[in-house]
Amino acid sequence: MGNPCYECPLPVAIPPEKPFLESVKLGIKETLFPDDPFRQFKNQPASRKFILAMQYFVPILDWAPRYTLELFKADLIAGITIASLAVPQGISYASLASLPPIIGLYSSFVPPLVYAMLGSSKDLAVGTVAVASLLISSMLGKEVNPNENAKLYVQLAFTATFFSGVFQATLGFLRLGFIVDFLSHATIVGFMGGAATVVCLQQLKGILGLVHFSHGTDLVSVMRSVFSQTHQWRWESGVLGCCFLFFLVLTRYVSKRKPCLFWINAMAPLIFQVIGNLKKGLNPVSVSELAFASPYLGTAIKTGIITGVIALAEGVAVGRSFAMFKNYHIDGNKEMIAFGMMNIAGSCTSCYLTTGPFSRTAVNFNAGCKTAGSNIVMAAAVMVTLLFLTPLFHYVPVVVLSSIIIAAMLGLIDYEAAIGLWKVDKCDFVVCMSAYIGVVFGSVETGLIIAVAISLLRMLLSVARPRTFLLGNIPNSMIFRSIDQYPVANNVPGVLILQIDTPIYFANANYLRERISRWIYEEEEKLKSTGGSILQYVILDLSAVGSTDTSGISMFKEVKKNIDRRGLKLVLANPRSEVIKKLGKSKFIESIGQEWIYLTVGEAVAACNFKLHASKSNNQVADELDAHNNV
Amino acid sequence: MGNPCYECPLPVAIPPEKPFLESVKLGIKETLFPDDPFRQFKNQPASRKFILAMQYFVPILDWAPRYTLELFKADLIAGITIASLAVPQGISYASLASLPPIIGLYSSFVPPLVYAMLGSSKDLAVGTVAVASLLISSMLGKEVNPNENAKLYVQLAFTATFFSGVFQATLGFLRLGFIVDFLSHATIVGFMGGAATVVCLQQLKGILGLVHFSHGTDLVSVMRSVFSQTHQWRWESGVLGCCFLFFLVLTRYVSKRKPCLFWINAMAPLIFQVIGNLKKGLNPVSVSELAFASPYLGTAIKTGIITGVIALAEGVAVGRSFAMFKNYHIDGNKEMIAFGMMNIAGSCTSCYLTTGPFSRTAVNFNAGCKTAGSNIVMAAAVMVTLLFLTPLFHYVPVVVLSSIIIAAMLGLIDYEAAIGLWKVDKCDFVVCMSAYIGVVFGSVETGLIIAVAISLLRMLLSVARPRTFLLGNIPNSMIFRSIDQYPVANNVPGVLILQIDTPIYFANANYLRERISRWIYEEEEKLKSTGGSILQYVILDLSAVGSTDTSGISMFKEVKKNIDRRGLKLVLANPRSEVIKKLGKSKFIESIGQEWIYLTVGEAVAACNFKLHASKSNNQVADELDAHNNV
Repeated sequence: MGNPCYECPLPVAIPPEKPFLESVKLGIKETLFPDDPFRQFKNQPASRKFILAMQYFVPILDWAPRYTLELFKADLIAGITIASLAVPQGISYASLASLPPIIGLYSSFVPPLVYAMLGSSKDLAVGTVAVASLLISSMLGKEVNPNENAKLYVQLAFTATFFSGVFQATLGFLRLGFIVDFLSHATIVGFMGGAATVVCLQQLKGILGLVHFSHGTDLVSVMRSVFSQTHQWRWESGVLGCCFLFFLVLTRYVSKRKPCLFWINAMAPLIFQVIGNLKKGLNPVSVSELAFASPYLGTAIKTGIITGVIALAEGVAVGRSFAMFKNYHIDGNKEMIAFGMMNIAGSCTSCYLTTGPFSRTAVNFNAGCKTAGSNIVMAAAVMVTLLFLTPLFHYVPVVVLSSIIIAAMLGLIDYEAAIGLWKVDKCDFVVCMSAYIGVVFGSVETGLIIAVAISLLRMLLSVARPRTFLLGNIPNSMIFRSIDQYPVANNVPGVLILQIDTPIYFANANYLRERISRWIYEEEEKLKSTGGSILQYVILDLSAVGSTDTSGISMFKEVKKNIDRRGLKLVLANPRSEVIKKLGKSKFIESIGQEWIYLTVGEAVAACNFKLHASKSNNQVADELDAHNNV
Repeated sequence: MGNPCYECPLPVAIPPEKPFLESVKLGIKETLFPDDPFRQFKNQPASRKFILAMQYFVPILDWAPRYTLELFKADLIAGITIASLAVPQGISYASLASLPPIIGLYSSFVPPLVYAMLGSSKDLAVGTVAVASLLISSMLGKEVNPNENAKLYVQLAFTATFFSGVFQATLGFLRLGFIVDFLSHATIVGFMGGAATVVCLQQLKGILGLVHFSHGTDLVSVMRSVFSQTHQWRWESGVLGCCFLFFLVLTRYVSKRKPCLFWINAMAPLIFQVIGNLKKGLNPVSVSELAFASPYLGTAIKTGIITGVIALAEGVAVGRSFAMFKNYHIDGNKEMIAFGMMNIAGSCTSCYLTTGPFSRTAVNFNAGCKTAGSNIVMAAAVMVTLLFLTPLFHYVPVVVLSSIIIAAMLGLIDYEAAIGLWKVDKCDFVVCMSAYIGVVFGSVETGLIIAVAISLLRMLLSVARPRTFLLGNIPNSMIFRSIDQYPVANNVPGVLILQIDTPIYFANANYLRERISRWIYEEEEKLKSTGGSILQYVILDLSAVGSTDTSGISMFKEVKKNIDRRGLKLVLANPRSEVIKKLGKSKFIESIGQEWIYLTVGEAVAACNFKLHASKSNNQVADELDAHNNV
């Protein structure tokens, strides 16, 4: 019968074979260097390349020479503003991590300096974060009691910070930053909300003035601990705490309604001088404190890696968001190296885990920062505090600290985002809620692991059970679309058109084979019961099948065998380059015949109709078609 | 400007919202019941439903009433043929599992009877398999020495078989059979080859007549064991073994060249009467032997689950292949229940793990079996052997056993399949080789775990790093295809058309955002350097984006913000139902404007060109277009 196609604009192309090594190189480049960080190095002399490389790895060399008084003025105001936030927050979060308050101040001195040299974000403000602080106290606190064995506990915290830094820098050097992407938005919303709830629950100790308290972080232990000693509650403490809390929430409300008054919220904690017994002087060196020989090294490494990932996820996301807002680009992997270096340096100078917290970065941005110079200003302000102002802090009841922490936490419970997830994507809502429930009723790690596992399972399931769609012809066009989505689309008599939705891999090849055979069976049954024309062609639309493997190729062979055995004909439409290459190499194209592979579904249907007409001597088909169109 | 589209055949449809519960129900049905096993139950009276359900769960009730003498004759011949294979194979494989040879015979009696009642394949012949036997001896042998503590070892083997059965039946009941699909074809080729190599290496003990031998299964330990005792080698044994091996390979070669002589190969092992000291009588009950209280219970469970999965993978794949060949359908999950039941029953009657081996099933099929009745005939023949013929077997050197095993194993090293993998898909070849190397140099589990991990990683990576393609217009058509695949396709001036290849999920949303921004940057640079028309529109072809989640929606919002900021316009083409639904719910459609979403890339381009012309008062664009077409 020859070529059945009356006007083929172009046959399906098999792209030219690339040399093996080149395709491997390309694959690695796309996987590890998707943002092409080296494009500026192309076609440059060696000396220029060296300067570019230095500027690439130490961005301060890039912007410092162009630093002006104008920029400095902006950075000065922003830096002092965030320093005023850094002092009370640093002290509160250190107490959340069960560490001495002064370590919170130390942590706002060295790490910002390191970040200012290595970081590429212009807006990020460095500091400690509540969630990581809580994680440190819950994970290390299980092994070593911070009250009974304070020295060892502090050593372990430094050691964990060191490993966080090493892990973060390693991820960055190996360009494996995409691991952070596996913490989905939904996971983070649920996890943050859960962690904030747990932190608030922990503050019941301070608010109620309790002396003994549960070591567990889950809701059940905390509630048991609170209600088993109702006679110990101190109402004075409770009233004071609630008043402070109300005041703090009010200032936030005001600064939210009138953004220009943001400083009210930022300054509010400063009104209360926070805590006493602070040692005067800068960060002591703590290299000798790193407890590599401790029997708890394993716990420290585990804590370091988990808190390191969480800190990275927050820091990188914050950096990216603000960079997008100001329309500049930051390299996630390079940021990781900067975070890693800053934590390694921090762990050697009595600091614990730092990253780029959202709240402080937002304040920095609002205050008009222009470069990472605002971090240097903040560090200088904290230095002045450490050298001269520590005697000004004197003892204030723990209840104030608790109120500050609760006020900060309430903003993290983002129920509006959770409602948004429910509206848009039920599955993401499930992920979010399981993270929340896992954290609140289990532990911080449990929640995280459950949420990541559900997210991954969903992704795997979407590959293992891809959807297949029945396509129909949209009237008065050559366009074929899913009948589910476009109910006006019409079946083509005698032809079954199926669209496959994802790459075909070993995990879904068996499913697809059975699903396609069920589609054919159901279509034949339907035609039998309605007395329509018999089925003659099965067209597979492969537009959405980006790639395949050998199991996928076997699937095609088996589907063809099955279709042949039923006396039907298999037709392929729009196979993509990866697929057609592999079909060619496995001789499938020869077995199906090049003339049964079309560029579009429209052409495939036209060819099938043409053959249907040609193969029937009488006009039966045409009558059927007419009858069909008249219905 | 109003509707920019001069002739839209149809706007993009947002499919009607389905009730939440209904969509969950549909999702579960597609995931767990893709083959719709209950379709025959629809619209039937209750009594008929009960009969159908009985026939569904116990297929023998379905076919036994229609059993004829004709069918019986065919099954009789096939059954006796496979029994002649079952006796020597059973004994050999039992010795491979370090179990007493009589257990191999027992295992060909009870399990086939159970399968004949519950199994839905007409061709599958039940029996023990080499790989699972080897796995049992290597996993249990690590804990308990089968020579020193034979009774405990046998008990553990029964216990492991019991747990295999429970695990298999559970998977089937829960409709989780797709877990088996995660063992890809490439994994199985590599794993089988590796296991066969290991088995052959183990036979060096028998061939060389060694007394002491390594307990490890890896190449290094075996070679060290063989060459450390060269003075113990017995050349008589070696010569005898090689002669037998040559004879067996020759018979296989003959039966392969002339398929009608297949029985020569099947019968060959029978010429040598195999081994002595067999007890007369049927299977003793072994329920009391199940060692649930043993300290090695954990090992037994682990062995049971791993061997159970391997056995399932072989049995289900074999059943499916032959069913497809004879054009009937078998339900994988129901088969799993049958396998599970047969192993539970087996573990209580002195049998160890059985499944549907490929070799025996192929012989059964060649011998013309018609129903599972051939399994009953085989069981009857084995029963006769057990009751009356065991005294006929007398002592024959172990070397013969070794030769039989090696001959059977050589067929499993499928180097041709490995070459095929290399040609068609390099990554599958890597999976295959890592399974092989892992098994040969590490252990059987190591190889399996490495291969599955690589396969999964590849799948995850293909989701995390989806490909994006630049589309161009195929001359003289409204068709747009990847310029990589169709080098004749032309760029459209002023318009950048990108195609995204997979569902957009949290794992790839960040990557896609950065990749799209790089595409735009590169296109602008290119246009700048060539002095072409400036970029005005970015069209995203979403034909291949089957679904998305909230991270994907955020990605769209950020891409739009980025594109707006550059002064360009974002246009979407062919969003699919899942995507358009979520875009609608998250108000993205309102923000982009319904008039910027088109049914096809062609329409989107036409609309962009129309606007380009309308927005420029002079004919600059038309000139450019002409100039471009003339190039």
